[in-house]
Amino acid sequence: MLRRSTSDIRRANRLDVLRRIYAAGSATRQEIARDSELSFATIANVVNDLLGCGVIVEGHFEGSGSGRPRAVLVPNAGRGLLVGVDVAETYVHVALFDLALQVRHASEHPIGPETNQPDDIAAHIGEAIDALLAEFGASKSDVLGVGVSVPGQVAPALGVSVFAPGWDWHDVPLLAILQERIELPVYLDNPLMASTVAELWFGAGREADNVICVTVGTGVGAGIAINGSLYRGTTNAAGEWGHSVVVYDGRSCRCGSRGCVEAYVGAPGVMRTLRELDADSPLLHGDDQDATIAALARAAGDGDPVALEAIRRTAGYLGAGLANLVNILNPEAIVIGSWAGLALGPHLLEELREVVARHALDRPNTAARLHLCDIPGDPVSLGAATFALEGFLDEVLAGASRTKSGRSS
Amino acid sequence: MLRRSTSDIRRANRLDVLRRIYAAGSATRQEIARDSELSFATIANVVNDLLGCGVIVEGHFEGSGSGRPRAVLVPNAGRGLLVGVDVAETYVHVALFDLALQVRHASEHPIGPETNQPDDIAAHIGEAIDALLAEFGASKSDVLGVGVSVPGQVAPALGVSVFAPGWDWHDVPLLAILQERIELPVYLDNPLMASTVAELWFGAGREADNVICVTVGTGVGAGIAINGSLYRGTTNAAGEWGHSVVVYDGRSCRCGSRGCVEAYVGAPGVMRTLRELDADSPLLHGDDQDATIAALARAAGDGDPVALEAIRRTAGYLGAGLANLVNILNPEAIVIGSWAGLALGPHLLEELREVVARHALDRPNTAARLHLCDIPGDPVSLGAATFALEGFLDEVLAGASRTKSGRSS
Repeated sequence: MLRRSTSDIRRANRLDVLRRIYAAGSATRQEIARDSELSFATIANVVNDLLGCGVIVEGHFEGSGSGRPRAVLVPNAGRGLLVGVDVAETYVHVALFDLALQVRHASEHPIGPETNQPDDIAAHIGEAIDALLAEFGASKSDVLGVGVSVPGQVAPALGVSVFAPGWDWHDVPLLAILQERIELPVYLDNPLMASTVAELWFGAGREADNVICVTVGTGVGAGIAINGSLYRGTTNAAGEWGHSVVVYDGRSCRCGSRGCVEAYVGAPGVMRTLRELDADSPLLHGDDQDATIAALARAAGDGDPVALEAIRRTAGYLGAGLANLVNILNPEAIVIGSWAGLALGPHLLEELREVVARHALDRPNTAARLHLCDIPGDPVSLGAATFALEGFLDEVLAGASRTKSGRSS
Repeated sequence: MLRRSTSDIRRANRLDVLRRIYAAGSATRQEIARDSELSFATIANVVNDLLGCGVIVEGHFEGSGSGRPRAVLVPNAGRGLLVGVDVAETYVHVALFDLALQVRHASEHPIGPETNQPDDIAAHIGEAIDALLAEFGASKSDVLGVGVSVPGQVAPALGVSVFAPGWDWHDVPLLAILQERIELPVYLDNPLMASTVAELWFGAGREADNVICVTVGTGVGAGIAINGSLYRGTTNAAGEWGHSVVVYDGRSCRCGSRGCVEAYVGAPGVMRTLRELDADSPLLHGDDQDATIAALARAAGDGDPVALEAIRRTAGYLGAGLANLVNILNPEAIVIGSWAGLALGPHLLEELREVVARHALDRPNTAARLHLCDIPGDPVSLGAATFALEGFLDEVLAGASRTKSGRSS
């Protein structure tokens, strides 16, 4: 069996408490104890740590009937800034958050095949952060950390982008490259993990503990939250559902396999379906994924038959893949997000629910709510910012916990 | 967010401690504390409960260097008997266990289409238990509980077999039927959950915390253990990977969907593949799954070209399905079990590993060990017996925990 160290447990408890305060907007220690599996003593310890480094504050006190008033804990918005960066295959989104994880300022830049190498990406992010801070009237010293999500497989502990199929990146030492350019603490992860944490803290996770966060963009994935915690898998590679086979011996996928979900429902896969229906379709805008998906969504809304057929076929493949998740993981909620999923979602959703019901067993299908992501803004940069918050806490509290003895729960 | 009650937490802690003692054969409180996430105080409480109801005993004491000797905790084999029942689609296996979960006696009876109704099954089990107890020289009063695994979807808390596709069972109140016939406490679950717990306690779970237990019999499934605990999903329906689509628009499956893994790699699916290759193959024994799979395994060992091609195709479908699990869940171990999987496994495994490597991403593929189940005997009845042990503890400790206050961790 694997062993988790005391500090791992302490970190997990800290995240659990923090998530509950952020998800609810405010909470008393007693409410956290009622809703979590942690002992009151553990919660009190964690809260003291969080108060000590100023991430949360005690707001007003509320009466508790007979007992003494209870302090309401709230995020300390003014304690500092966090940056969340969503590096997608066609754009870089950079957002400046206060410590209540509210967006204060954000910018987005398109990237293309000629500007997607690690140094380009680092330069983009660095310039965007400088510009945002200048516009906001803040400086780098106000920033507690920068969370960066990059597509593909990431080893956060090593600071390495292990594999980004769209860019043919292999074992890129991205953390070092980013830190040299940005000169702030950087925390690396991928959009699956980031959007799933965003969903846990600010979306479906406020009401469900087993949540799957399906991202449909250029790449496709399914972040998994189990019992209220992000499930990373054994090597931070869980959630690569986009590369699960749904059409045996089907289309070649950029991962090297065939018949993957992504090859059919990622933006390039949908474009291929459209081309197969009508190679001369006016909806096709060459290689421009954004323009083509937007045109397809508009045309579907207008009742264009080719667009509707492309949507129907996409719903078929996507629905079969979602039913696989329903049958394997029996979740409470599946949330569809990312740019292509959200653009096509309103046209897909009804058909999708029917397809899922056709493939999934009744019992797990009945348990699973399927809906579109409704977190405003960019959930990936939000999730990336929570990783920066987590990293900041690890740094400042590492000294504190080294001086304590015993287990935290 | 869902809330787990204090008694749920207490039960989870109890199972965690019990699993560690059984998996290691013996353990001190200190060893459990070192390896688990529980506090020493929680472990001491749980151990006191377990000692109190006699399920474990303090064996010899071992020196601890400078400190005082530490008591070694071991299962109390003689405390009573447990029955584990594996109701499969072609047989009923009934095993009598001591409280160290060692098989003391077992029997197996074939069942066919004319003897697979709930009353037939209950009669089979009842007669087998009576016969085993008589042969062993024990009586019903020695039995602490009977765990029964039945195929398909089960709602343990309701005592209902929700859906068994092979038998067309829908919402059968099986617990009541079994209890009336058996006159002992019965605990109901399905083979996925049972074999996964067996794997956690006595198989791959002794060295890995993220384990997938793939059962390949008439039906096909994939039980999931995450962080050392059985993952049941939201409505005890997790693991229905046998009904995940791997061949879009492929063979009809008995679940009503098309292209499911089970339709290709369950025993009837393999037989269909064999028929497609050679409708007159001498390996085909009509509808007799056991005889046909056994003949196929023998012929593959002898280098028969039709058998080898059937094995190759089966490895193709099964490998694609396993790669999906690797990519989605990034496990440490995948264990293949159940009768058809074990019969064909030695001929499948090499090809299977190649197919998985072709479909799965490198990183999760490297992390996942794929091997055949090596738990001796029938792992499903073993797992079912652990559910009976769990149920017994819930019963006898429910009174004890009601009189205590506070949280257990």
